[in-house]
Amino acid sequence: MSKEKPLILVTNDDGITAPGIRHLIKVVKDFGEVVVVAPDSPQSGMGHAITVSNNLYCDKSSTSDSDILEYSCSGTPVDCVKIATQAVLKRKPDLCVSGINHGSNSSINVIYSGTMSAAVEAGTVGIPAVGFSLCDYAMDADFEPTTRYVKKVVSYMIENKLNTGTVLNVNFPKLSADDIKGIKVCRQAKARWEENYDKRQNPQGRDYYWLTGEFINEDGGEDTDEWALSQGYVSVVPIQFDLTAHAQLNQIKDLNIEH
Amino acid sequence: MSKEKPLILVTNDDGITAPGIRHLIKVVKDFGEVVVVAPDSPQSGMGHAITVSNNLYCDKSSTSDSDILEYSCSGTPVDCVKIATQAVLKRKPDLCVSGINHGSNSSINVIYSGTMSAAVEAGTVGIPAVGFSLCDYAMDADFEPTTRYVKKVVSYMIENKLNTGTVLNVNFPKLSADDIKGIKVCRQAKARWEENYDKRQNPQGRDYYWLTGEFINEDGGEDTDEWALSQGYVSVVPIQFDLTAHAQLNQIKDLNIEH
Repeated sequence: MSKEKPLILVTNDDGITAPGIRHLIKVVKDFGEVVVVAPDSPQSGMGHAITVSNNLYCDKSSTSDSDILEYSCSGTPVDCVKIATQAVLKRKPDLCVSGINHGSNSSINVIYSGTMSAAVEAGTVGIPAVGFSLCDYAMDADFEPTTRYVKKVVSYMIENKLNTGTVLNVNFPKLSADDIKGIKVCRQAKARWEENYDKRQNPQGRDYYWLTGEFINEDGGEDTDEWALSQGYVSVVPIQFDLTAHAQLNQIKDLNIEH
Repeated sequence: MSKEKPLILVTNDDGITAPGIRHLIKVVKDFGEVVVVAPDSPQSGMGHAITVSNNLYCDKSSTSDSDILEYSCSGTPVDCVKIATQAVLKRKPDLCVSGINHGSNSSINVIYSGTMSAAVEAGTVGIPAVGFSLCDYAMDADFEPTTRYVKKVVSYMIENKLNTGTVLNVNFPKLSADDIKGIKVCRQAKARWEENYDKRQNPQGRDYYWLTGEFINEDGGEDTDEWALSQGYVSVVPIQFDLTAHAQLNQIKDLNIEH
């Protein structure tokens, strides 16, 4: 077993200067050697996007307020993880932490989330990873109540032998430290977004649209992330990147598509 | 039951003028009323990205070579599906078809793929959807051998009562019509990308990077999409967007993270 301190890669999707990642860096720096590779600009809603047709910059960052090595990258959150593991870091990280996101990534939001996609990307190459999100979109959100639980999850991830590719989606309710009831391990709630595009005209008379929408939770289960958050718990959902709908394999075969 | 012809939404990630989508439109137009809402520029590798901080344009397109209604959208493939279903179409589509992508979206590529994310987005709101991809990145790839199988899958999707949210990931081997052996229903192979960033210097002396990489299939199973494609079959993988790693729920609970 290595005697080195655990190497922890930190990233996010709100950009390297966002309060959420600054808080996360402060909390995880006691757990090992921390290296930050994060986007140089906000990348919310980028999902698992990668940069294929443009070049990337990845520069040592001047925002560092400590001796922690930080790099700001011109790409997406997934680009950050790829370039960190393949071009920046000297060894494979023991853990990748992403966030703390300004806003929820529970239920269906996980598929749109750059924060979670960064964690998933680490998972695809066998790095245990966790994405943290606070259900508060404000830039001046109070991240202090998350501290205790971030520490708990990070020490859990480092101490336990988890399956290769373990990725956790952790969401915090917008509550004071005293009001958070604890942690619940959950499944992803079945939910969807119902968009309501705001149609306008530009000064030249051309129509354009703004994305607005309503979140609709269609899942009454008391074992879901939405339920846990609504009850004041921190939700922890283990995430996979095998998207095969195994339950449907036989149904599709039975319907004779192969013949 | 409705007497109307099935409404088929067509989109892609290579852009509305790409040969792959032009071929797809030609093939599906006999199956119902076709409306195209596709990106106005290439959006490969955009994954499930959505446009949250910018406005979107979605204009009637002039590239139409028939009486089919076509719109080109300034956003990502997922934006196209959202704006199509919420602002363009008068009723919910009976089917969403995405592609035909210039290049493979088998195995782990599904998570980076704008083509597949568009199909998944349709699935999240209960529209049966299928993404088609040809394992040939060339812009002048020969899509003719796919015709027979696109017809088969589309008529299968329209005729059968599939589960709400059924999404199929269909990949075609780069073979002549005579050499394609048929269709195999598969699971997603366990595979990953190993990047090899090409580091260069811009004229001002600043380092930059190009993403290059090698695809590594770590899965020897003969029930996977990679295996089927290697054997000359069209691979069909049913896809889900519940990312919960159900098999891991109890392991995580047992490790006592809740206490």
